Amino acid sequence: MTVVSESVSSAVSACAQAAYRAAPTLAAAPDSAIDGALSAMASRLRASSASLLEANEADVAAATADGMSAGLLDRLRLSPERLDTMASALELLASTPHPPRSAFVRDLPDGLKLYERRRPVGVIGANYEARPNVTVDVASQLVKSRNAGVLRTGGAALGSATALLRSVIAPALEEASLDPAAIQLVPTPDRAAASALVSQPAHIPLVILRGSGETTRTLGQEAARHGVRTLAHADGGGVLYVDVEADVSVAIDLVRNSVDRLGVCNRLNLLLIHSDVYESFLPSARSLLTDLGITLSLPPHNHPIGYEWALDSSREATVTVLPVSSAVEAASVANTETSGLAASIVTTSQATAEAFMDAYTGTGVFWNATTRLLDGFKLLAVPETGINIDKVPGPRGPVTYPDLCLRQYAILPA
Amino acid sequence: MTVVSESVSSAVSACAQAAYRAAPTLAAAPDSAIDGALSAMASRLRASSASLLEANEADVAAATADGMSAGLLDRLRLSPERLDTMASALELLASTPHPPRSAFVRDLPDGLKLYERRRPVGVIGANYEARPNVTVDVASQLVKSRNAGVLRTGGAALGSATALLRSVIAPALEEASLDPAAIQLVPTPDRAAASALVSQPAHIPLVILRGSGETTRTLGQEAARHGVRTLAHADGGGVLYVDVEADVSVAIDLVRNSVDRLGVCNRLNLLLIHSDVYESFLPSARSLLTDLGITLSLPPHNHPIGYEWALDSSREATVTVLPVSSAVEAASVANTETSGLAASIVTTSQATAEAFMDAYTGTGVFWNATTRLLDGFKLLAVPETGINIDKVPGPRGPVTYPDLCLRQYAILPA
Repeated sequence: MTVVSESVSSAVSACAQAAYRAAPTLAAAPDSAIDGALSAMASRLRASSASLLEANEADVAAATADGMSAGLLDRLRLSPERLDTMASALELLASTPHPPRSAFVRDLPDGLKLYERRRPVGVIGANYEARPNVTVDVASQLVKSRNAGVLRTGGAALGSATALLRSVIAPALEEASLDPAAIQLVPTPDRAAASALVSQPAHIPLVILRGSGETTRTLGQEAARHGVRTLAHADGGGVLYVDVEADVSVAIDLVRNSVDRLGVCNRLNLLLIHSDVYESFLPSARSLLTDLGITLSLPPHNHPIGYEWALDSSREATVTVLPVSSAVEAASVANTETSGLAASIVTTSQATAEAFMDAYTGTGVFWNATTRLLDGFKLLAVPETGINIDKVPGPRGPVTYPDLCLRQYAILPA
Repeated sequence: MTVVSESVSSAVSACAQAAYRAAPTLAAAPDSAIDGALSAMASRLRASSASLLEANEADVAAATADGMSAGLLDRLRLSPERLDTMASALELLASTPHPPRSAFVRDLPDGLKLYERRRPVGVIGANYEARPNVTVDVASQLVKSRNAGVLRTGGAALGSATALLRSVIAPALEEASLDPAAIQLVPTPDRAAASALVSQPAHIPLVILRGSGETTRTLGQEAARHGVRTLAHADGGGVLYVDVEADVSVAIDLVRNSVDRLGVCNRLNLLLIHSDVYESFLPSARSLLTDLGITLSLPPHNHPIGYEWALDSSREATVTVLPVSSAVEAASVANTETSGLAASIVTTSQATAEAFMDAYTGTGVFWNATTRLLDGFKLLAVPETGINIDKVPGPRGPVTYPDLCLRQYAILPA
């Protein structure tokens, strides 16, 4: 377990209490105030671009001096174009309708009427890497769902995140007559703050953990010990099953479309091929992947079948290949050997597709479509807060702001 | 933490594995097989009543010899009438429609179509007291929701539960061509089996904990440490707020209707009265409650304001009374001092009712209605699996079988 110093713990605790106090005013706010705050964030983002870029420059310079890799530096860097994209996303979110807050269920005896209502959670925590745009992305989705929040970003982006909070998020909330304390940013770069964030069930019952891998897995376990629920996926890895009745050109297109990016959770990680077409299909797959600079890991494997190459920065450009004897076996391998994020079947047979789709229990099951579509924005046209792969009822798969609510039953008199 | 012996641990583990193997056939079963199994349970319950009553007699005799209290003995005892009620409940459940397994969401690019599907969880655990009827109640709801299950009953009811499993549940599943192994009963009366049940996240990701109090609280914490989700409410206690604009006769009726049973979680536990009517309303409330044999705990209190009398068997017949200065203060007391199960306001003012309902964040918020309605069957006309008071997204308040599912996104080609 991570040791959290007194000062880190009290810094996070102060954020949690401030957000908790501000949460009720957000919960009670009219839709117009919420959307007004989001529009104001967009305007302020555009108006403050010079000072935001300056704050980000300082973060980038410090990270460069610390030897940060090119890939991470790219994610840390803001540019006028990125700020513009962020502002457009805020405007889109401001114009997205709010889900109804109350729905009639049925009439009860004595003329009473039952409604199901959607309530905000209260305060939601979020932990994410050193990516300044995520600060605005998550904050805006929390505000849209009427939740207060405590954000904790990777230390390298703390200067940028602080500038975004001070000149964009907080004043926009205030301009819309919402309490600017509703969105808190943990002010310390100490990594232990993430542990403190997942150990305050009374104030922060739910924490969104962005990003995959060991850090997320450890934080998820730590949260569970404290009775804090997380929305997270420590593991990912898309599965594609090429059936005996697959159209080869469709299969090849899907393989290609599933490896357009390699560092993401929903890319092709495991290619399952029906044994009757293994010998005939493998050469085409090999030729395509080799051309793309991707290595095939063929049997016998010296790693677990579901090993996630996206998390192995030195061997990211690898796809595991395995023959299977049926669609149901393919689904079973995907169920038992992988995270349960997403799997797809390529086949012309409806019966086989249905058998595969009924057997696979992961968060997304696709037929003749790439697992790269397992993404809140691509699926639902709203930004995703994150992806959750729990095997229990509740938000699962891409999580979007309408998911961030509690169910409440209300009874009204006649 | 409870120490679980090797033999108890392996008994529960064997149940978990057997249920896990049987789960996929249940998940794939047509609606007709599911409902056929439930109808067959009803027939078998009626046909086997003599042998079931005999098995129950033995449990009751042993419990009597062990000095079990009259209240618990009553809950342990089966009778022809109770068996008939159980059979009728099964027939009702068999005739209740299944929620749609798939719903169209939207068109995606390239002619792809997105669906949201409901999938069973797989295996769900359930821990409950020595009440034989709950074995059938929970088993039938798990079957209706296509989940396999591992049931663990209080040791005193193990003989009855075993008879119900062997002569009712298992053969009915078999008769409907479902795997009888789908419903497992932990074969040991050892209390430590409950701990074993909440520590197998790979096979049993979700456990329903029936009943309130310390056992449930401890099991919930133990489950959390293992990454197992529970649906439970360790604490309950209904809150009634009598507003300054309350109709006194409505208020008195509600008080009376809220204390018809005292050992239940949704009974009146805390009576809040607006300070401007405190002196005028208190005598009527006192007179009514005293007539019903109920003691009022008036300020200054020597216990926490939310202290739950239903869990204190020697002082069950008590109601805490507290003056408050407004509807919003009443909601705030209910939010911070009680479990968040349910609270009700008595008022003739719509504005005050709305302020109260917006401020109270618990699972049920009622206006001029008793908190005794916080019950799956009373609210939704379907049996409840239990009540959950988590403050995170997912099933909350009364949990019914349609809640016991996982969300999965599916993409189909044009």
